[in-house]
Amino acid sequence: MLNYDMSARGTLPRYEYLYRCVRNDVLSGELAAGDRLPSKRALASQLGVALVTVENAYAQLEAEGYVTARPRSGYYVNALPQLAVTHSSKGASNVPAGGAPEPPLLADFSRPATRADSSAANLWERALRQTLAQEPRETLFAAQPAQGTERLRAAIASYLRRVRGVEVNPSNVVVGAGAQVVYMMVARLLGAGTRVAVEDPGYSRVWQTYDACDLPVSFVPADEEGMRVDLLAATDASVAHVMPSHQFPTGRVTSVARRFELLSWAASGERRIVEDDYDCEFRMAGRPVPPLLASDTAGRVLYVNTFSKSLSSALRLAYLVLPDDLMPVWRERLGWLACTVSVVDQVALARLLESGDYDRHVSRYRTQQRRLRDQLLGAIRASRLGVRASFEEADSGLHFVLSLDVADICATTNAPQVRGIEQDIARATLARGVRLAPLSDYAHDDHNATRPDGCARFVMQYDGLDSAAIPQVVVALEAASKVRKSPGVR
Amino acid sequence: MLNYDMSARGTLPRYEYLYRCVRNDVLSGELAAGDRLPSKRALASQLGVALVTVENAYAQLEAEGYVTARPRSGYYVNALPQLAVTHSSKGASNVPAGGAPEPPLLADFSRPATRADSSAANLWERALRQTLAQEPRETLFAAQPAQGTERLRAAIASYLRRVRGVEVNPSNVVVGAGAQVVYMMVARLLGAGTRVAVEDPGYSRVWQTYDACDLPVSFVPADEEGMRVDLLAATDASVAHVMPSHQFPTGRVTSVARRFELLSWAASGERRIVEDDYDCEFRMAGRPVPPLLASDTAGRVLYVNTFSKSLSSALRLAYLVLPDDLMPVWRERLGWLACTVSVVDQVALARLLESGDYDRHVSRYRTQQRRLRDQLLGAIRASRLGVRASFEEADSGLHFVLSLDVADICATTNAPQVRGIEQDIARATLARGVRLAPLSDYAHDDHNATRPDGCARFVMQYDGLDSAAIPQVVVALEAASKVRKSPGVR
Repeated sequence: MLNYDMSARGTLPRYEYLYRCVRNDVLSGELAAGDRLPSKRALASQLGVALVTVENAYAQLEAEGYVTARPRSGYYVNALPQLAVTHSSKGASNVPAGGAPEPPLLADFSRPATRADSSAANLWERALRQTLAQEPRETLFAAQPAQGTERLRAAIASYLRRVRGVEVNPSNVVVGAGAQVVYMMVARLLGAGTRVAVEDPGYSRVWQTYDACDLPVSFVPADEEGMRVDLLAATDASVAHVMPSHQFPTGRVTSVARRFELLSWAASGERRIVEDDYDCEFRMAGRPVPPLLASDTAGRVLYVNTFSKSLSSALRLAYLVLPDDLMPVWRERLGWLACTVSVVDQVALARLLESGDYDRHVSRYRTQQRRLRDQLLGAIRASRLGVRASFEEADSGLHFVLSLDVADICATTNAPQVRGIEQDIARATLARGVRLAPLSDYAHDDHNATRPDGCARFVMQYDGLDSAAIPQVVVALEAASKVRKSPGVR
Repeated sequence: MLNYDMSARGTLPRYEYLYRCVRNDVLSGELAAGDRLPSKRALASQLGVALVTVENAYAQLEAEGYVTARPRSGYYVNALPQLAVTHSSKGASNVPAGGAPEPPLLADFSRPATRADSSAANLWERALRQTLAQEPRETLFAAQPAQGTERLRAAIASYLRRVRGVEVNPSNVVVGAGAQVVYMMVARLLGAGTRVAVEDPGYSRVWQTYDACDLPVSFVPADEEGMRVDLLAATDASVAHVMPSHQFPTGRVTSVARRFELLSWAASGERRIVEDDYDCEFRMAGRPVPPLLASDTAGRVLYVNTFSKSLSSALRLAYLVLPDDLMPVWRERLGWLACTVSVVDQVALARLLESGDYDRHVSRYRTQQRRLRDQLLGAIRASRLGVRASFEEADSGLHFVLSLDVADICATTNAPQVRGIEQDIARATLARGVRLAPLSDYAHDDHNATRPDGCARFVMQYDGLDSAAIPQVVVALEAASKVRKSPGVR
């Protein structure tokens, strides 16, 4: 853990001083290429500074290229090109500046693939080309309603009917440039000061958006059935933001009983539910789970979805479906805001939805991902790791949770200890080129970070995995899961 | 003016009651196709209801297709298809449902063209096609920094150096899906509660964004030299949002002296200026006016620009350049928000900027627009209108202000009377297929709506004009400007 004397900062702002300390350690080699910086929260608490101080220092280091942020994983020290320049300045000039070689990354389970796969890229390229060739220019460069083009909204409504079994009015659909834009719209609709409950552990972008829009956030733990409605009811929250089809990061599917508990919580007292259905297409086995929206007779659900998982997050395509009574509020608070997605992209997406090409792509991609998941699970089961590994929610989407029984490694299994083991294992696999994401990293409140069952847990976003790497991934996991057995650690 | 008895609404919400009254008038034919509804503010004040009540009623009418909103112009009653269906249900089924025929619109000066011209559409289509064909897929579907791709930010910085003569660091550029997204970023950066001064008359989207983000707004009048800094200083505002290159709607260019007044206002007391340079490429004569940013040695200017005017507003491409000291604030408050523009679009735009194709397009388009403007001005000057018409700020961009001397039409020229004449003339030209936008419609405060010189003024956004329509436009203007001479009116 980095330990700096913050009182030695003189007149420098805290973040600036911290940034300089870390930079000096990188330049001096105290921090080596590939090292992971401590989590922002941990470092803030250790140094006794505000979280935002560490955030700004890290952001500055990142902006200047000293470290790289891996979403939902942390900050890693970069190999510094200038060192290589010193070495190679006298030699050939065409040698790429490499510095200390970064360990080659075999697999990164800490973040989703940026695009579904190469066929998604193909599909989108073709859709754009055909749109440009076949649609009248008057349409592609025309003014559009603030909610998005009527054509795309109709195509989304028809898709939701076909695939999610819900009847929505295209007039209630709002298109936005990515899930976060849609979250911001939701925040603006609910209004500053409205308390929102989110699942913990959860997707940090959700609560960050509410927080940034001045909506106070309550972190509510979930059990096997979903968000704990008893604990939800004990908060002052009038809105619950949930992911019932496939919670991130736990992968859990909210049970039917819990769904009705949530809906009746909402119906009794003018409350709202934001249903975040981001991964709904990728249920790998069994019947698809209908969304809460399908059972929402009281009109309490705001439904959010994105095309980032099925196509690419580089495209910025998401949408929101509002209950009727929120439409006048939308018009008042957001109706003046021009739609954030280009008309060309909207028409291209509408064409994919209308033609069935999108459905076929999703179906093919789901099959391919299921095969990939089966290979990975099979390889882990067949390895020496098999006896201590289990898989949670492997059927519900493009990630699952790998649970490793570490009770034999670690005498007691209190939360900080399990968290420590998760970090140790992740560090050890990273040295072997496999980036794991400890589940505890996704928790906001420490008491929601681990479960008292002696298992270390990792969120496995496998959609970017190259199946050829699976054997080496398994070797890395095997080696790393014995990390605590080395003498001197136990 | 619509006159409804709001006390007769029973238990209906006000907006719902108002919506029903107007709808009934449309259905009964009391309001005919093409009729313009009263301005929201005027109707709110007449009926003694809140502005938001009228806004919601109008939005509802619009959503259901009874009226169409024309940006910066107002709401117009639609021809109702159902009437036509009644007529034609017994006849041929392929006759397009037309209802009462909408007067054909020869020219609409009340809003900008959605796309620069057909060559802009060509240019963008070609850029997209070449991007898809030539750029590696790994680039087009890759994760991107929250500020936008490095390539586009570098291309924008180089463009600003080349064309606007300012040196900006690409790390300080932030890409966003349209000017309003960028305004929202600015609002978030400044923080809720920060008072912002805007020019009055002005661009309503600007103050609406601040208002929606809980930043109080002061409306400051402008004179020939730009925003009145003496009046600005008398407000509590710590930020001024100005359009120094080409103010919307007055078209005025802020004088050099006023620019330095603004900058020193900002420098003395930790204040900020938001420079909105939306139309900077289209100075039609004389030297281009350098932006405030070029003289901003104190780092007080946030610079905003868009590609809506030069390419198409359907594309959603805009950006923000921040001073160094705001970068940590950006990272803290917005750094977690994924960029809102698709990578494909960003790469296509970067390629246009890098190749010089964008510069050539702008230069060609500027010449074409100058010719169009000259034709229009020449035709008005040569008409019977010539003696009473003058043109304000016709050199500074894609709109100018047409000023008509109405002193001989109207005995006194107090503000309500001039406003009334502007409305009358606009109504009369609309009946002849020419939509004019009275300048007074853009004022927030009544005392900023007109000038005491006996002239009626119209904002002429000519970039969508078909030059073949110019003779008929002039006839319509001639006829309409005599509207008050008819017996019984004077």
